Amino acid sequence: MSDLPRHVHLHEEGPREGFQIEPGPVATADKVRLIEALAETGLTEIQCVSFVNPARVPGMVDAEAVAAAIRKRPGVRYTGLWLNLRGMRRAMNTPLDIQGRVSVSASETFSLRNTGKGTEDLLDEIRATLAFCAERSIPVASGTISTVFGCNLEGEIAVGRVVDVIARLFHVLDEFGLRLPVLQLADTVGWAHPNAIASVVGAVRERWPDQRIGLHLHDTRGTAMANALMGLQLGVDAFDTACAGLGGCPFAGHTGAAGNICTEDLVFMCEEMGIATGVDLEALIHCGHLAEEIVGHPLPGKLMRGGTLQRWRR
Amino acid sequence: MSDLPRHVHLHEEGPREGFQIEPGPVATADKVRLIEALAETGLTEIQCVSFVNPARVPGMVDAEAVAAAIRKRPGVRYTGLWLNLRGMRRAMNTPLDIQGRVSVSASETFSLRNTGKGTEDLLDEIRATLAFCAERSIPVASGTISTVFGCNLEGEIAVGRVVDVIARLFHVLDEFGLRLPVLQLADTVGWAHPNAIASVVGAVRERWPDQRIGLHLHDTRGTAMANALMGLQLGVDAFDTACAGLGGCPFAGHTGAAGNICTEDLVFMCEEMGIATGVDLEALIHCGHLAEEIVGHPLPGKLMRGGTLQRWRR
Repeated sequence: MSDLPRHVHLHEEGPREGFQIEPGPVATADKVRLIEALAETGLTEIQCVSFVNPARVPGMVDAEAVAAAIRKRPGVRYTGLWLNLRGMRRAMNTPLDIQGRVSVSASETFSLRNTGKGTEDLLDEIRATLAFCAERSIPVASGTISTVFGCNLEGEIAVGRVVDVIARLFHVLDEFGLRLPVLQLADTVGWAHPNAIASVVGAVRERWPDQRIGLHLHDTRGTAMANALMGLQLGVDAFDTACAGLGGCPFAGHTGAAGNICTEDLVFMCEEMGIATGVDLEALIHCGHLAEEIVGHPLPGKLMRGGTLQRWRR
Repeated sequence: MSDLPRHVHLHEEGPREGFQIEPGPVATADKVRLIEALAETGLTEIQCVSFVNPARVPGMVDAEAVAAAIRKRPGVRYTGLWLNLRGMRRAMNTPLDIQGRVSVSASETFSLRNTGKGTEDLLDEIRATLAFCAERSIPVASGTISTVFGCNLEGEIAVGRVVDVIARLFHVLDEFGLRLPVLQLADTVGWAHPNAIASVVGAVRERWPDQRIGLHLHDTRGTAMANALMGLQLGVDAFDTACAGLGGCPFAGHTGAAGNICTEDLVFMCEEMGIATGVDLEALIHCGHLAEEIVGHPLPGKLMRGGTLQRWRR
């Protein structure tokens, strides 16, 4: 356990992950209300919306309206998600905090299916994005590798392929003299188990010992918290999370759509283990209940029902 | 990870944990149906009912009827729970597989509240139970220490107190020349986090290096799977589990009543990590759906919604 970090950074993605997947419409004011409540908890980075095709993702039709309505709190970064330069340009016309983000998939088939582009074409697009950022002095904050631990289209993903696609991405970044502050390894479709986390994180560490690594985990098969623990044991100190486990809707009948790892459950575990998160758990539990009230159905978070241990301690 | 066991033993407690806590009546035939389905999955030990006061636990009023109706499958042990000799005598009048079980709490206050007896009185009762078993050649299969990781009545439990209460229990067993095949450390009210698992398991190991240790985990605050992982990493190879996460009913409004760690989620994680469970996951998922159908509301298990990875592998 000697590699446990002393503190972790959490990128709260609940509003974006959650409201993107909800079957019914969610009022713009409700989205803003949750985002503003999350910003009161001590979380310092909140992904608010995605700038994607509203024909494909109707829940994000009001992305600009949400971004415009947020009363921003100093010290909190309000992020958005986009898949291409068109989305990024839309985001730049809002008050959100704009940073460059790049993403490739460890699965060629997933890449084609999800973005319409194979890795080579995607790397060309990333070159265009990096040039666009460089011209405007926009910092590049992170890079995500998706389907790192397995893919519903290609099955198992060999660790060597993960390392290879990261090397190709880093090669493109090198052309611009850039290094990623965080490399996010994403268990996009919930295949990861603790040994897989250890294998992939270990292989990436061995090749790039100084690269900060983050994990984007889904709880599709109940392993998210165990996977996070394995990450923590290996020194991983950056996690994408979702308040109340938003992003999945396991009780509405669509199989397998489990959310991100639940923010407050992970915060609880970290704080109990002596790993600082900077987050006020009671305030975060309040956000979990608010999220449930807004979506109108139970969400998978546990701590919001179990409660913290503060009231029992002497 | 070098201490990971090669296989784990699971004691399935879903029928007992689950049907004990359900607010509405569950038909005897449904209980039997789930128990029989669980026995088809490869699970070798299933806790079926508890012999407790039906005035206090109305869901167990038909304990004898359930036990009598089960068509037993060879190779499967059908267990029951009781808190005293009266309960044990009731169990002995059924076809269940009778083994001696002893239990004490690391929290004196919890012990008084839960059993009406402090540790000293409980140890006297255990002497009577052990004498009763010895006279009838009934093997003593396990001992459980409850509230090992914290208590809602006493707060934090020092590791030294856990070791002390185990020493007192072992002293009584010594009087009968007995050793426990498994010592179950129970996170009765869901306080455990991975470092606490490591501390307590470590302390018990140090004092009794040859004692086989099991974990009884609840997912009250979302940490059960991470706690199980920490246990596995320390070589723990016996777990109490509940199909579909039965035993909790987090969506029926009673806060904090989260179930045992979910059998199929733990089986999934173990098998993915190369730890054999002997269980057919698809059959177990079928049981999860059956449990949900019987109780009539969603249960917290994840894998039963996410599905195994078999269909995606190539």
